[in-house]
Amino acid sequence: MDLSTIELVREDLKTVEGRMRNFSFPASSPVADSLEHLLAAGGKRLRPALALLFGRMLRVAQEPLFAFSASVEIIHTATLIHDDLVDHSAIRRGIPTVNAKWPAGMTVLVGDFLFAWAAQLVAATGSTPVVEKFAATLATIVDGEIRQISAGDACCGLDEYESRIQSKTAALFEVSCTGPALLAGDTGAAERSSEYGRSFGMAFQIADDILDFIGDSVNTGKPSGQDLAQGLLTLPAILYFQAHSGDPDVSAFRAGDREPGLRARLFDAIRSSDAIDHSRDSARRYIGRAVESLASFPKGGHRDALEDLVKSIV
Amino acid sequence: MDLSTIELVREDLKTVEGRMRNFSFPASSPVADSLEHLLAAGGKRLRPALALLFGRMLRVAQEPLFAFSASVEIIHTATLIHDDLVDHSAIRRGIPTVNAKWPAGMTVLVGDFLFAWAAQLVAATGSTPVVEKFAATLATIVDGEIRQISAGDACCGLDEYESRIQSKTAALFEVSCTGPALLAGDTGAAERSSEYGRSFGMAFQIADDILDFIGDSVNTGKPSGQDLAQGLLTLPAILYFQAHSGDPDVSAFRAGDREPGLRARLFDAIRSSDAIDHSRDSARRYIGRAVESLASFPKGGHRDALEDLVKSIV
Repeated sequence: MDLSTIELVREDLKTVEGRMRNFSFPASSPVADSLEHLLAAGGKRLRPALALLFGRMLRVAQEPLFAFSASVEIIHTATLIHDDLVDHSAIRRGIPTVNAKWPAGMTVLVGDFLFAWAAQLVAATGSTPVVEKFAATLATIVDGEIRQISAGDACCGLDEYESRIQSKTAALFEVSCTGPALLAGDTGAAERSSEYGRSFGMAFQIADDILDFIGDSVNTGKPSGQDLAQGLLTLPAILYFQAHSGDPDVSAFRAGDREPGLRARLFDAIRSSDAIDHSRDSARRYIGRAVESLASFPKGGHRDALEDLVKSIV
Repeated sequence: MDLSTIELVREDLKTVEGRMRNFSFPASSPVADSLEHLLAAGGKRLRPALALLFGRMLRVAQEPLFAFSASVEIIHTATLIHDDLVDHSAIRRGIPTVNAKWPAGMTVLVGDFLFAWAAQLVAATGSTPVVEKFAATLATIVDGEIRQISAGDACCGLDEYESRIQSKTAALFEVSCTGPALLAGDTGAAERSSEYGRSFGMAFQIADDILDFIGDSVNTGKPSGQDLAQGLLTLPAILYFQAHSGDPDVSAFRAGDREPGLRARLFDAIRSSDAIDHSRDSARRYIGRAVESLASFPKGGHRDALEDLVKSIV
């Protein structure tokens, strides 16, 4: 992604960074350090950047906008901490996960601590519609995670995949983009920014799923081929499996075979197949929708940045 | 406790019970059944009963009051689910805990699901002060839990004990009692109900800690002597240890000895000592404060019920 597009809100992001970390963690410094480390390693701050771009474009009051922008990044981090525990992931953002360093009990509580902190930040916006949307989004995210671990291995067709990434990723991008319009009390803008955020999130997750096949672990900060290794079928695998349903490796995998040699063959077959291009096409359709949803927002730097940002996903 | 005192809000409690369960759980029926089971086994509904008594006394609008009353019981249940995972508890309310039946990952997500549901319920009150107080309370609870597991074995003197039960128990009773006054927009009532709730919670937790020594597991729904077995010092043990600091068993326990024979001797010594009566006296002081805080509320059935309820704790 091209992060130069968010130059316009670079200063705002620094303020939001301060708001995000404006808590005191109640435990010994090693655990506090892990959390600090995770927040510092914290990637691109895309969700607050989107909130700030929409907020500035819609001339939302500064303080509620900063609190809201901080809250979406904190809730994102909280769900990652619990997710990594659920998935037994050991590496995130290139550093050991909380669950890799601390017992499950502490990991649960560190996640809960951030849930509570996010709730305080969102309460500070003083906006009931924002609080409602935020609570509903948290429910959608958890709901999606529970469905995912309940469904078990290699469950997914296209519809299930879309519904899964909608809950897991797009919902939080959606609220990040819609929140500012709700703060501004602008229902029309809320609908259009919601469409942008959802489409952004879908494209973003598809791009991430493609990267799990073609990216290298140095750049992504996590081992590649993880999804397939865990039996989780993402878009490239689903499209490849559909196009090669007669292939004996595909049939064996579908029947539950997870032999490392089989997985390695499938991984190589998928990454060099046209399923990667078809996945990119799918991401581009979402990007097109996101761009369309911007049409009636005020022209200017913020709208241009939102357009450039979503176009830079793939 | 004498639950006949909450007869006045018996019908309201049925409505709140309906609100509490008005979600659809996204996973297979066995997990949904566990959650349903836990909610059904769900004890005395003291927190919603307190919210309803204050709400009716202060003539708060019905719908926000029901949503709020449901939210405090749901957040209570969510924290119990994560607590039992953190503490490896196997039995709660006389039935197996969620973590005893399901993997840690599912247990984390079931708790998160209830956090999200509580957030939706509290958002439905439409009251920013209530949402703020609720979020701050959740932070206090998690903060207390993190401090507790970080402090490790047998940490506690009297001050630490009070601060621990304030976070762990009294904070949620406090918000349960204060929320209705905040819904009514009555700052003076909020302060007095907050004092009532905090004192109620302190007395309640002390009574519970006494019961861990003198209760039988059939009535309490959990094994007795648990706290001491886990190295957690509660009021009876703290008072006994203070009064018998020269006792070799006390010194051995303080030095980290957890030999079962030693624990059994200490358990019997504490339960038959006057530390139990002194703990009751401490609970009664909190009850006295709670009763005083009711003085300037409107006279009538609801105030009488609140007085009788807190007096029935010990």
